[in-house]
Amino acid sequence: MLSKNTVKFIKTLHQKKYRSEHKKFFVEGEKSVLELLSSDFNTEILLATDTFLDKNYSLIEKKNFEVIPVTQKQLESIGQYRSNDAALAVVEMKPNSWFEPTDHELVIALDDVRDPGNLGTIIRIADWYGIDKLLLSKQTADFYNPKVIQSSMGSFTRVHFYYADLGDTLAKWGRPVYGAFLDGENIHEMKQIESGVILMGNESNGISENLEKAISQKVTIPSFGHAESLNVAIATAVLCDNFKRLLPAS
Amino acid sequence: MLSKNTVKFIKTLHQKKYRSEHKKFFVEGEKSVLELLSSDFNTEILLATDTFLDKNYSLIEKKNFEVIPVTQKQLESIGQYRSNDAALAVVEMKPNSWFEPTDHELVIALDDVRDPGNLGTIIRIADWYGIDKLLLSKQTADFYNPKVIQSSMGSFTRVHFYYADLGDTLAKWGRPVYGAFLDGENIHEMKQIESGVILMGNESNGISENLEKAISQKVTIPSFGHAESLNVAIATAVLCDNFKRLLPAS
Repeated sequence: MLSKNTVKFIKTLHQKKYRSEHKKFFVEGEKSVLELLSSDFNTEILLATDTFLDKNYSLIEKKNFEVIPVTQKQLESIGQYRSNDAALAVVEMKPNSWFEPTDHELVIALDDVRDPGNLGTIIRIADWYGIDKLLLSKQTADFYNPKVIQSSMGSFTRVHFYYADLGDTLAKWGRPVYGAFLDGENIHEMKQIESGVILMGNESNGISENLEKAISQKVTIPSFGHAESLNVAIATAVLCDNFKRLLPAS
Repeated sequence: MLSKNTVKFIKTLHQKKYRSEHKKFFVEGEKSVLELLSSDFNTEILLATDTFLDKNYSLIEKKNFEVIPVTQKQLESIGQYRSNDAALAVVEMKPNSWFEPTDHELVIALDDVRDPGNLGTIIRIADWYGIDKLLLSKQTADFYNPKVIQSSMGSFTRVHFYYADLGDTLAKWGRPVYGAFLDGENIHEMKQIESGVILMGNESNGISENLEKAISQKVTIPSFGHAESLNVAIATAVLCDNFKRLLPAS
């Protein structure tokens, strides 16, 4: 049965402060919870409707977590979804962990992308393009924010992240860094590359000035009209699509 | 002075029913209102803070509309923006009007794209890529929805739209129609095209079955990872970027 304490506990996880303190976050909605249960994340509690439990019995019976049957109304009062007739899971965070790009690999770095919807959408885009590493500045939105998880549409289970000082990390890696600017080289005209980091800037201010020295090349999506800019997630997708053409086939 | 009736009237414009009845909509926020005032839209009332009025005096003095000085608090209680220290304008709608694509021109057609944020973002993308005509199915979000206007970031002033039955209109035009599917031709491998319509489907269900016969070619953005799909606005941007490469330079 769903206890008041469990409800209270999950509600604290809406806030970053408590997520960090407990090292836990939550995932809601049918698609995301199903992707979660098939991933290497450690689920601790699953709240689910009878329908969800019946439908996914085989996926749940083998697992070692607490299952609490709830109503749709309870799910909606605990989580952030307006409509959720399936499930909500409490999950253990993975630690912030160092990685390094390999040869022929693209990595996305985000310099203070603050909107959780943008970060979640970028995680989904990365997953589409087979990019499984994100380097995130410390002011970038929290990977475990419920809106990030929601807009990643399950892709958060497949993309690794590392929060760090971007300047230091890019210098340590020593890989080419392609920074997205409005006055860089036309990405349609670039030649083949070997590997690299696609660096995207903040929604309002773009890439910080102090990162300019870390950038090997400024790149630009050609404009044919009058809009002043593109949303950062949109620009990330277009750049990933272009860079995938520029890498040698693996 | 701001009257109670004006407040009441603008508040009705949050709803499609009243926008259609009065043939008016509203635009809010500094950037969007400035783009509006430089466009061929007919502004009827401008609510603005003293700061905005002082800063943009030259743009406003020549115009023939009612100007009502208001506070930031008033703007925020009338509009949809959480924070608006600039302006909100009541504007005359343009009629739904027929257009036809010319040679070497790309048009975007949307089949029941229902999320206003997606439509607004697609308007901004169209404007970036110099595409100024959108064909919209009748179930697509309302072009004058405040969220569409907001997420178009001023690009709504430069993009024309026509709400119509897509099947009939595409047949009348007789142009090649490139439909976005998950099982079409890899867009990275397509050869040069002359002109055409990029057709995008509904967020959940994709392109309606009854439009299949209107489609000349199914196209797909190649996937390199595991995400099942891309958001419709993201996919529109990537396809526009690819089609711009495929058109002869104009």
